[in-house]
Amino acid sequence: MSFQLDSRLQQDCIHLGRFELCRLLLMNDSQYPWFILVPELEGIKEIHQLDVKQRQQLMEESCYLAENLSALYRPDKINIASLGNIVSQLHLHHVIRYQSDKAWPAPVWGAFNTIPYDDAQLGRYLMRLKDKLTACQFII
Amino acid sequence: MSFQLDSRLQQDCIHLGRFELCRLLLMNDSQYPWFILVPELEGIKEIHQLDVKQRQQLMEESCYLAENLSALYRPDKINIASLGNIVSQLHLHHVIRYQSDKAWPAPVWGAFNTIPYDDAQLGRYLMRLKDKLTACQFII
Repeated sequence: MSFQLDSRLQQDCIHLGRFELCRLLLMNDSQYPWFILVPELEGIKEIHQLDVKQRQQLMEESCYLAENLSALYRPDKINIASLGNIVSQLHLHHVIRYQSDKAWPAPVWGAFNTIPYDDAQLGRYLMRLKDKLTACQFII
Repeated sequence: MSFQLDSRLQQDCIHLGRFELCRLLLMNDSQYPWFILVPELEGIKEIHQLDVKQRQQLMEESCYLAENLSALYRPDKINIASLGNIVSQLHLHHVIRYQSDKAWPAPVWGAFNTIPYDDAQLGRYLMRLKDKLTACQFII
């Protein structure tokens, strides 16, 4: 069965590119730099359903992403989470957090309504990310 | 520097045992089966600060835990997260979630005040876990 991105993720996110295992999405919420990795595999809800090689690949893609986002944004903390109570398709959040952000220290999920990016902001994002995440094959 | 468990984790959790890399804690909140893995390493805040071998070990311990908790509790979803906005010492939550639990579909963090276990509940927990998590060296 070929991979289909969940419709809610499709609606809420901007497709940035691809790593070896995962699709890289940007949550369309300008309040926090918020990235999501989605393994391009059908029918997976939980990390432990991946085989050992896929788990290690997910871990390496997540760490590569976190390491580079950390260098780019200098966050106080990165929140990494596989929740999936609303969207069950396995996806791994990476949210850049600052003590000065509006939800701190609470988690961002459900804290505030999203505020989408405008085109100029998005353009700047992409330029900075493309320079930094060279292991990602960007599609835009 | 030898490993010291964060004082807040010490206060909020029950120490269950040890895997090769991580200490296994039970959050003392009877509202959800809620487990925490803490790599026994000093000065680590983020997963990407681990070396490749430690990352893979964390992944395998997390998946072993999730797989066995899944068989034991038959959850609708497992929420796995490294947040650390309040406790910066790296720790990985594993929360068993049901559509019928009181916070669903919201995350559990900050949703409700904790309700500690009583001794009888805790005893039952430990008996079931010891039978299931045979790769964990239980300390009680």
